[in-house]
Amino acid sequence: MAGRIDARLKELGIDLPSPMQPIANYVPYVIAGDLVFISGQLPTIAGKVAWEGKVGGEVSGEAASAACRQSFVNLLVHLKTACGGDLDRVVQVVRLGGFIAAVADYTQHAVPMNGASNLSVEVFGDAGRHARTTIGVASLPLNAAVEVEGVFRIA
Amino acid sequence: MAGRIDARLKELGIDLPSPMQPIANYVPYVIAGDLVFISGQLPTIAGKVAWEGKVGGEVSGEAASAACRQSFVNLLVHLKTACGGDLDRVVQVVRLGGFIAAVADYTQHAVPMNGASNLSVEVFGDAGRHARTTIGVASLPLNAAVEVEGVFRIA
Amino acid sequence: MAGRIDARLKELGIDLPSPMQPIANYVPYVIAGDLVFISGQLPTIAGKVAWEGKVGGEVSGEAASAACRQSFVNLLVHLKTACGGDLDRVVQVVRLGGFIAAVADYTQHAVPMNGASNLSVEVFGDAGRHARTTIGVASLPLNAAVEVEGVFRIA
Repeated sequence: MAGRIDARLKELGIDLPSPMQPIANYVPYVIAGDLVFISGQLPTIAGKVAWEGKVGGEVSGEAASAACRQSFVNLLVHLKTACGGDLDRVVQVVRLGGFIAAVADYTQHAVPMNGASNLSVEVFGDAGRHARTTIGVASLPLNAAVEVEGVFRIA
Repeated sequence: MAGRIDARLKELGIDLPSPMQPIANYVPYVIAGDLVFISGQLPTIAGKVAWEGKVGGEVSGEAASAACRQSFVNLLVHLKTACGGDLDRVVQVVRLGGFIAAVADYTQHAVPMNGASNLSVEVFGDAGRHARTTIGVASLPLNAAVEVEGVFRIA
Repeated sequence: MAGRIDARLKELGIDLPSPMQPIANYVPYVIAGDLVFISGQLPTIAGKVAWEGKVGGEVSGEAASAACRQSFVNLLVHLKTACGGDLDRVVQVVRLGGFIAAVADYTQHAVPMNGASNLSVEVFGDAGRHARTTIGVASLPLNAAVEVEGVFRIA
């Protein structure tokens, strides 16, 4: 019995990779009641940051949007584990935090972050609509162009 | 029957505008249990960012304090909607996050953010005292000088 | 009857100072249900920021790690108050947010933040493993090199 959200991911051509563990004293997610707090995700593919540099500089807004989409995919990987493999248990995407490593005069932070927000709604429909905070930051781990964190409600 | 908090806002001379919806796949707030997570609010008036630039540069600490106060007004707009129009349902302002787009050598981030914190206590009294994190950021959407997000507890 | 966590802190040679109150309209922590939201903590010792400047510049990664460890000590001070003095009531360190005031080309943000994460696990064991978001910021209050905030679950 394939799940509804798994089927939706397949339609979208998204194949969730195996979860990677942080190489430090923290974990990908913590469940507190019905909330899942997921660690900030870099836009990695196969464990390597795939979008490096500053948005508005060497990284275009369009590229940064793809990077935020990938960060959201990485959130989904850990969310699926948090749900015991069943993403149909996701009741609501509660909050996404978007961190854009941008040049100092960048003003279009919504463009990259929409890459994460749009995928959230593509995957979860109305339950994917979330509160969101997007800010520009001076630097990110491993020279990543973006980072996205999330809080989710599960049943 | 005018609400207690509505009366307090009137005393303070604050007229909450109509809520504006984000032009993207996110929403102004999400309710999870008795917590309301509200999206990061720019210091907009009538839909336009009213304080642009860098704090400690072209924007003074005093101006940035007024900007944070306005961002808190914008939080209140969405909080009121989340409460079905009745702000008396607010039990506690739980956490405010303050993002100050400051020049690199700025050190007085508390000055702007107090504009939000002070209004919180003016409006809600002791229930307005909150946990707070204030940081300096490299840039904000639409060249805003500040951004404030919030988590609230409602009955 | 000394608490288990108090005994562990003693083993680690950590003597929690008396809590200091913010000099503003906010509070060190708010309890919402079984979650404790604690305000962002600077790496202060006896009320003075003990690590100033930019990480990757005048502040080394190693020094910044000690700073993050101190910020976590300051979180513990308020967490203990939130628990009515009994840190054995801590069920889980849910989420830490790490803010590193770094030079623009800094990439090793995990190094400083591990100072907080490692202490969390040293103190609480597996319950100290947390979700974590670490970002580089342009500036912090009082020229602090780092700031750490936290969400905790208590019984």
